[in-house]
Amino acid sequence: MSKEEALSTALELLENRKYSELRTILIDMEPIDIALLCEGLPEEKLPVVYRILPKELAAETFVELDAELQELLIKSFSDKELNEVLRELYLDDTVDIIEEMPASVVRRILNTSSPEDRAAINELLKYPTDSAGSIMTTEYISLKGSMTVAEAFDRIRATGVDKETIYTCYVTDDNRRLTGVVTVKELLLNQYTEHIGSIMDDNVLCAATGEDKESVAEKFKRYDLLALPVVDNENRLVGIITVDDAIDVLTEETTEDIEKMAAITPSDKPYLKTGAFVIFAKRIPWLLLLMISATFTGGIIGSFESALAVLPVLTAFIPMLMDTGGNSGSQASVTVIRGLALGEIRPADFLRVVWKEMRVAALCGITLAAATFGKILLVDRLIMGNETVSVLVAFTVSLTLAITVLAAKLVGCMLPLAAKCLHFDPAVMASPFITTIVDAISLLVYFAIASSLLL
Amino acid sequence: MSKEEALSTALELLENRKYSELRTILIDMEPIDIALLCEGLPEEKLPVVYRILPKELAAETFVELDAELQELLIKSFSDKELNEVLRELYLDDTVDIIEEMPASVVRRILNTSSPEDRAAINELLKYPTDSAGSIMTTEYISLKGSMTVAEAFDRIRATGVDKETIYTCYVTDDNRRLTGVVTVKELLLNQYTEHIGSIMDDNVLCAATGEDKESVAEKFKRYDLLALPVVDNENRLVGIITVDDAIDVLTEETTEDIEKMAAITPSDKPYLKTGAFVIFAKRIPWLLLLMISATFTGGIIGSFESALAVLPVLTAFIPMLMDTGGNSGSQASVTVIRGLALGEIRPADFLRVVWKEMRVAALCGITLAAATFGKILLVDRLIMGNETVSVLVAFTVSLTLAITVLAAKLVGCMLPLAAKCLHFDPAVMASPFITTIVDAISLLVYFAIASSLLL
Repeated sequence: MSKEEALSTALELLENRKYSELRTILIDMEPIDIALLCEGLPEEKLPVVYRILPKELAAETFVELDAELQELLIKSFSDKELNEVLRELYLDDTVDIIEEMPASVVRRILNTSSPEDRAAINELLKYPTDSAGSIMTTEYISLKGSMTVAEAFDRIRATGVDKETIYTCYVTDDNRRLTGVVTVKELLLNQYTEHIGSIMDDNVLCAATGEDKESVAEKFKRYDLLALPVVDNENRLVGIITVDDAIDVLTEETTEDIEKMAAITPSDKPYLKTGAFVIFAKRIPWLLLLMISATFTGGIIGSFESALAVLPVLTAFIPMLMDTGGNSGSQASVTVIRGLALGEIRPADFLRVVWKEMRVAALCGITLAAATFGKILLVDRLIMGNETVSVLVAFTVSLTLAITVLAAKLVGCMLPLAAKCLHFDPAVMASPFITTIVDAISLLVYFAIASSLLL
Repeated sequence: MSKEEALSTALELLENRKYSELRTILIDMEPIDIALLCEGLPEEKLPVVYRILPKELAAETFVELDAELQELLIKSFSDKELNEVLRELYLDDTVDIIEEMPASVVRRILNTSSPEDRAAINELLKYPTDSAGSIMTTEYISLKGSMTVAEAFDRIRATGVDKETIYTCYVTDDNRRLTGVVTVKELLLNQYTEHIGSIMDDNVLCAATGEDKESVAEKFKRYDLLALPVVDNENRLVGIITVDDAIDVLTEETTEDIEKMAAITPSDKPYLKTGAFVIFAKRIPWLLLLMISATFTGGIIGSFESALAVLPVLTAFIPMLMDTGGNSGSQASVTVIRGLALGEIRPADFLRVVWKEMRVAALCGITLAAATFGKILLVDRLIMGNETVSVLVAFTVSLTLAITVLAAKLVGCMLPLAAKCLHFDPAVMASPFITTIVDAISLLVYFAIASSLLL
């Protein structure tokens, strides 16, 4: 059953108040799919559908809903209902929800939570956005080194139901300092009488609360982790991050990089939910900045106006030179930016990258110049019969093209690397920025060569 | 200890043949970090370092090495050593390695494997690249519905050590058909006497062997999975995919999208390991194609040569108009391409997207036009004293700019959506492609307005 079909079936069953049939369909769906279905429903139907769901599925669906729909639902809840939902949620999800809600709703959530949850939520809310602390949860299983495997299983059975993951357990000493990690796999493959202290891995990968969440996500990818403990500056265990949240961070950061590469200030809201004015505000500063830069390119043309007046055919090649230069430069810059983001290229590789791009540029430049030389003489001169397009004009354009491609590739690979060395974000040094610089270079080269060869 | 320090320490210990000290350092490192260290070593030292490592760590490090170093090591192995390494590897890793090796090495690997492994490897090698089958492993834990929880734990204890994940177990009937899934968490939270059939989830998310691996990776992200079963077309369980492989696919696919957006044919090798000629071959077809398209833009200028000769100042605004149009268009196209990739925008949203971009374009167009109008009159006319820049010229340029921005945003959002509807890859409709189209539009608009207002 496709999503559209599911939605129309659900709507029909709702209209006809066939709630038990609706329940049967919903129960077999994944929470995220029910949430997407809810987003298509008329607002007043939402609480009805929500109350049809079994408690646990309802809470899981609640997490996946849009902030607006969550707010709508919370306002329709009695305090008792709100408390039931909150009890089913993981703390990190509750914190995510709180961050999107207006103050009045936040107050209600905090008032309805148990005192321990309230304390934990307030603690989590303190960590800066983008820090490891902001995406961690405090619901993990902690063991002691002196426990046996059997005791560890007892503890997991007793407390596991509320924990976000039970598969990695953390071993702490009496001061809550992280001393080791043990997986349920290791517990299962050892004797019940074995002590945790002797089977745990005491060489633990962990993150600091203030560590950037992007670097945390990279650790998950690099070390194939399912969970990562988070410690404070005295190495006390304060929370864990699970792989699903790390995947979300990776996706978010990539979107940000792509947006920056297209000269857009990153936004964390989906496109269709963002108002036109907000989108405008994220795009216009860059457009203005790049437009002002482009007027300098115009100035170069302006100062060669008299040369162009003598040989107007030169103007016709300007778009091709600018576009090809821009495209060559952005190929290099985007490759290097992505390589830096994936850790495949490091600032120390500066010279290797430049040397490689020089060779690529030489190959590209010669090929493009040869193609252009042939095309100009064959098409423009012979077929179109444009007599002003002399062999010398074709040579001027081709030579300019080759030099432009070389310059574009060098600028394109060097600027992101330089940005990285200076601890700026390399993603900003992508196509639009490179294009503007390369445009100016290509025109200067063009007019310099034309002046000495043709005029 | 930083990577550079670790490498120089390791080299020093190697030189002085202090192998036991070296071992102490290496033992506490993660396999991927040891692999990176090995890549910095002189080739002849590699087998020495490798033999220092404990067997399991050695195998884990082997998986993380470059194909070239793996080949080097395999060639230095005796058949017995090779067999030991292969026994420690997961089957999907062995298959990945085989795919990179020359035929002679492949033959040795297959000859050294056990008959069962050889059969499984040959089976896995049959699946097309980019299919779910190509990234799955056949090492999973399967249970029967009639088993009790206690029996399930016995089975996990007996066979778990060789399985890539034990946390999700798959329940099959006598014909190997997938009937349910049960997690170790559920096993731990239920009584030992409970039957698997009564606690398993029989509503199983799964992938087909031929399913595209990108769509598989999206399922991991969407449903927060740790593992996903893969079934053949008779619903028989043939393998599983784990979350670490799904993360790799997500990263790979994003890199491909970014490369396509920058008009580069995607490559699956890291930049620094790719030869200059290969990089050239991935870039030049697009540069040539876009260069040829750009000559049409040149043709437009050519056909207005006489108009430009009358009012040469018009030429100076061409780069600004082309660049701003290109940037406006790529902002829209990149936003829509990423939205489509993340599933935030669907082809059915066509009209919503167009309507939103029209409003954004109106805001951007008016702002940019006003800024340009003011700038031309203030800077070009008053400060620079260029008398040929009349109010009418400023108006012509500003009006062209506003129309160009509108056209650029519409082309930018509509082409990726149209590509998606026609089942082409939207990522190709990014900046370079949009820029070429928008260049032509902006010049046509410019000369049409200039002809009617100024000449």
